[in-house]
Amino acid sequence: MTRKLKDADSWQVLQAGKTGHLACVDGSEPYVVPINYLVDENCIYSHSLPGRKISAMRAHPRACLQVSQIKDDFHWRSVIAFGSFEEIRDEAERRTVLRSLLDRFPKLTPVESQLAADVELLPVIAFRLRVDQISGVAEE
Amino acid sequence: MTRKLKDADSWQVLQAGKTGHLACVDGSEPYVVPINYLVDENCIYSHSLPGRKISAMRAHPRACLQVSQIKDDFHWRSVIAFGSFEEIRDEAERRTVLRSLLDRFPKLTPVESQLAADVELLPVIAFRLRVDQISGVAEE
Repeated sequence: MTRKLKDADSWQVLQAGKTGHLACVDGSEPYVVPINYLVDENCIYSHSLPGRKISAMRAHPRACLQVSQIKDDFHWRSVIAFGSFEEIRDEAERRTVLRSLLDRFPKLTPVESQLAADVELLPVIAFRLRVDQISGVAEE
Repeated sequence: MTRKLKDADSWQVLQAGKTGHLACVDGSEPYVVPINYLVDENCIYSHSLPGRKISAMRAHPRACLQVSQIKDDFHWRSVIAFGSFEEIRDEAERRTVLRSLLDRFPKLTPVESQLAADVELLPVIAFRLRVDQISGVAEE
């Protein structure tokens, strides 16, 4: 049966993960997309081209990220972290965050390859979720 | 680069999938969890024990399901279907839906094993999302 994870174990799952599902609220609609991310201190960092999730979070900053750590159908952990969206507008910090994300994801997509070559020219948005609540469940 | 999918291709991804990420709105917070599901006609069917997602969707019925079809990092499709939550309260229909879900997921979890043995005794909720909007993107 499933059991609740201690917060420290939930953080471990969040920190070890590389992809998760980011949910936000767009008007009265929920919205969810898979993202790559990394964790530093109590924040989740990611990047995105402009689009629906960025517009939604600019208007309504609450968001959450669900991350799964799956061995098999009966051995898994699932974590959800809640936080508030903050766009990283400082150019030096933005470049540092984008480089860290690219270092973590060596299999670059075409957009990211262009980004790696020329960070400042693409309209890529770097953002963080400052996590203020985390919970997790496990079956083990 | 990514391209938009035609609706028929988005439906194909949704119908072929078995697991997705369901997002809903809980007060002012988004919420997202992985679920097993099946599609019949224009509806997504799933089941759940009582909990946060059910309470949230009872209060605010709008929800969405994101489903990925991944070959590798550069060949994937991602679909999001939006709809309204409807709890299946008719007992005959509820049993039919639960049996269909169990048939589709032969690797039963302990809860589902008990459910298969005795559908009517567990407080398992069957529900549908009646899909009214779908979109998808692909990199291929």
